[in-house]
Parts: sequence; structure tokens; C-alpha cells
Amino acid sequence: MPADFGPESPLPAQPTASDATVAAVLDALAFNDKGLVPAIAQDAGTGEVLMMAWMNAEAIAETLRTGRITYWSRSRGALWRKGESSGHVQRLVEFRYDCDGDTVLVLVAQTGPACHTNRPNCFFNAVRDDRIEVISDPVA
Amino acid sequence: MPADFGPESPLPAQPTASDATVAAVLDALAFNDKGLVPAIAQDAGTGEVLMMAWMNAEAIAETLRTGRITYWSRSRGALWRKGESSGHVQRLVEFRYDCDGDTVLVLVAQTGPACHTNRPNCFFNAVRDDRIEVISDPVA
Repeated sequence: MPADFGPESPLPAQPTASDATVAAVLDALAFNDKGLVPAIAQDAGTGEVLMMAWMNAEAIAETLRTGRITYWSRSRGALWRKGESSGHVQRLVEFRYDCDGDTVLVLVAQTGPACHTNRPNCFFNAVRDDRIEVISDPVA
Repeated sequence: MPADFGPESPLPAQPTASDATVAAVLDALAFNDKGLVPAIAQDAGTGEVLMMAWMNAEAIAETLRTGRITYWSRSRGALWRKGESSGHVQRLVEFRYDCDGDTVLVLVAQTGPACHTNRPNCFFNAVRDDRIEVISDPVA
């Protein structure tokens, strides 16, 4: 199966979703006992997995309606419009969810680094040569 | 940042980890109140996000020691050696974890379809043209 991302086959921008589609998506999802689902953000151009955060129904509705990725901050107990303080916003390219409806995958166009450490993505700790290595640097 | 996967730059196979490295990884991770972390499996060759499941300390240790992806099945309450019944095993190419240590990303070499529906990956529901579409078929 060819990957459906990559510079040679960019996905179209996601139009905003109607109320009916938002309702259908929310109905299809299986939220956990805290009303959340994990959401994986993947760069729509490179395929890089950028981060994982959580969404509740309100965050999903806002993401689908506005085309801007919005999570639920468990620490703040509030909607987290990605990039609202850093400017490192994520534009929705495509919204997907899995077979069980308990995990979301958002393909995004990322502005700036995705990670709060200023690294391109959050998964910069890797086991290589039988030790833990930090495999990317913060961008200037 | 260039993606570090793709046919032109295959990652080396992951050697098995020593007890010291397993202990260091477990120490660096922040397990939830059920002793679990979400684990995202990504195809090391194509960058395709295959699935998301959960790992506990034992599953992570086994994954690192054997090079075969092992999850924790929340429904069965037991280790889930991916592919043990289907044959659709995942070989570990690289083990990574994120900035907060609360999410794992495993780059894998997947045998057969990753999804229990026999689709290549679990994220086959997509919002396109303001409706939910199934974007892949089960493989024969």
C-alpha cells in the first residue's frame, strides 16, 4: 500500500465539517471513562509522527469545524488550541479514526516545531546501540 | 527535518536491549494510573501509522529484549504478542518515546496487515468531502 502522504502526493486541505458530520464522527468514537480519546498528529507532508495528545468531544468538534487542531489539556482542564501561545499551530489536512473508534489520527500541516521543547516532534528519545539517545535538537 | 524512514533510508534492525537499557527506559516512562502507556506503531519503511495499542512495563521489556512488538491487551488482561494468532507480527526497528515519557512510538517492520479487519492499518475511517469514508479495503 503506498503511503498517501509525501511531497509528491499532498493531500488537499480539509474543508470545515458540517454539524451533521461532526455529530456522525462523535457518534462513531468510543471515548474513555474521562470522555477523551488519544489523538496522534502526523505531518501530512513527511509522514513524521509529531505528537500525541488527547481530545474530548468539544475539541474534536472545534477541530473539524475550524480546521485548526484543538486538543483537551488534561493538566489545565481546558481546550488547548495548539499554538495559541507558541504560534506553532497545526492545520487539519485530514481527520481519521481507527477500527475501534478509540484513537484519532490527524494529518496536519505543522507551523514551526510541534514539541514544547522546540524540537520538530516529541519523539526524540530513541534506543540506539543499546542506549537511550536524544536524536533531534531544538530548532533555533 | 527529513523523515528518517522511507525506502531510500531504511533504518537498521533493532538489536535486543540489555537489562540496563530496559531498566533505563522503564524508569524514563510515565505510566498512567493503570500502569500503561499508549504505543503508536509506525511502519519504518513507509511512515504509515499502523495502529495504537497499550504497553505495560512487562510488554515494553519483552519488546526491547526480543525485538518483537508486544502490547498489553486491556480486554484480555494479558500480554499480547502481536501476530501470535494471526501471524501478522511486528518486528521492532526502533523504539522511541516522547518528551513527557508518556507515549511510545515503535517503528516496525509489519508482516501482513496490521489491523484485525485485515486492512493494512487501523486508521481507515476518514472525513472527506464532509462525510465519513472508509478509505482502505481488507487485503485478500
